[in-house]
Amino acid sequence: MLKRRLETCFSPALYEPDEHRDSIVVIIDILRATSAICTAFANGVESVIPVAGVDEAREYKKKGFLVAAERDGFVLDFADFGNSPFNFTREKVEGKTVVYSTTNGTGIINMASSASKIVIGSFLNISALSGWLAKQENDVVLFCAGWKNRFNLEDTICAGSYAERLMATSLYSSICDSTHAAIDLWSLAKLDLPGYIEKAAQRTRLRDKGLDDCLAFCLTTDFTDKIPVIKSGILVNNIL
Amino acid sequence: MLKRRLETCFSPALYEPDEHRDSIVVIIDILRATSAICTAFANGVESVIPVAGVDEAREYKKKGFLVAAERDGFVLDFADFGNSPFNFTREKVEGKTVVYSTTNGTGIINMASSASKIVIGSFLNISALSGWLAKQENDVVLFCAGWKNRFNLEDTICAGSYAERLMATSLYSSICDSTHAAIDLWSLAKLDLPGYIEKAAQRTRLRDKGLDDCLAFCLTTDFTDKIPVIKSGILVNNIL
Repeated sequence: MLKRRLETCFSPALYEPDEHRDSIVVIIDILRATSAICTAFANGVESVIPVAGVDEAREYKKKGFLVAAERDGFVLDFADFGNSPFNFTREKVEGKTVVYSTTNGTGIINMASSASKIVIGSFLNISALSGWLAKQENDVVLFCAGWKNRFNLEDTICAGSYAERLMATSLYSSICDSTHAAIDLWSLAKLDLPGYIEKAAQRTRLRDKGLDDCLAFCLTTDFTDKIPVIKSGILVNNIL
Repeated sequence: MLKRRLETCFSPALYEPDEHRDSIVVIIDILRATSAICTAFANGVESVIPVAGVDEAREYKKKGFLVAAERDGFVLDFADFGNSPFNFTREKVEGKTVVYSTTNGTGIINMASSASKIVIGSFLNISALSGWLAKQENDVVLFCAGWKNRFNLEDTICAGSYAERLMATSLYSSICDSTHAAIDLWSLAKLDLPGYIEKAAQRTRLRDKGLDDCLAFCLTTDFTDKIPVIKSGILVNNIL
């Protein structure tokens, strides 16, 4: 049987859209965008509209949408709440459409728009999503958001955790050095995940801004079985 | 004391020239360009001219230069020999200027041209070069050549080995996730270096082309104490 290809991309600057037209792209930005989005779906959000710019978020607010938007750790004055997963409570989001302002995430979704499917991955939905991926027939790209086009550790180890699970199914092969590196880094990180994350630059950035209260939560596996998927630029729950 | 910054760049697509104007950039492309260049200097070459294109290499040949040039594993008809380190014997290169055709390597040298200094790193000169770096006052960037803009394992673990040595001096600090990842991958790789390299895509490419005879040599530490450095676009031995 021809195995599916599994690849890992460490940064938007390394993404090759033409290579992945038939692939499912898993977007991984665990501190905090993809963790927040998974939490929103766990708590019954109807859909999430990812937007890049502050102006776009403000326009949505004027139209009456719930808007989650921060810049540099401060909730924007017009927004309903900030970007932490803890804001996406059932009371606030159930049955609603939420606009989520994320420069990085929105850019990545646009970059991957030529792929067969785009789904949102984090530790919070890892069993559900990796199980679903294994049932599809597509190649898979684990697309780490990184930070300002740079490699980052937290998304890489999450990708490594996905890759370890997918490779264990024997359905995939990988000649992708990034995938091997991600699996190896995960093999070290999983021995003490909170300790390992201490090395990550984003861990320091969040602490400096007092935004690190959600860190342990973002490293939690299987908080939800929801699989957010992009349909026409909007995130909805994947119907299995 | 203010520590120097140590950063690692996994691919030309991730290099940020404006960040590194005062830095020493260490170019790492161990299979096979930087290993071949270190070998040439170990064997007494006077200088190495890195060129990107076949046409440029051919022009140098017409002018009477010794030229090392391959494409897809075949020595080009006008060239004196191919790109393997084993071709740069003392008999052939001592006291001479050699033109080395390397698309990737030349592109990287051009990208890094705004840096304070550009030096050539491999396992073959790791003690000499890391010792020399520690005596300078500059920040250091370990610039992995990668493969067609992609991350690769072999350059990353070599960068990790350099980073481990430099961080051990306590002269450097790093908030660079790539550096931490490189050190961690090196910590796994060094337990069985030839075994680890089996995972690398380039290892398979070289084997498929019958060009892997130099692999064990390229993983050898301290074959030479020479430090090739770029001066006006040409590689010469660094005068300490």
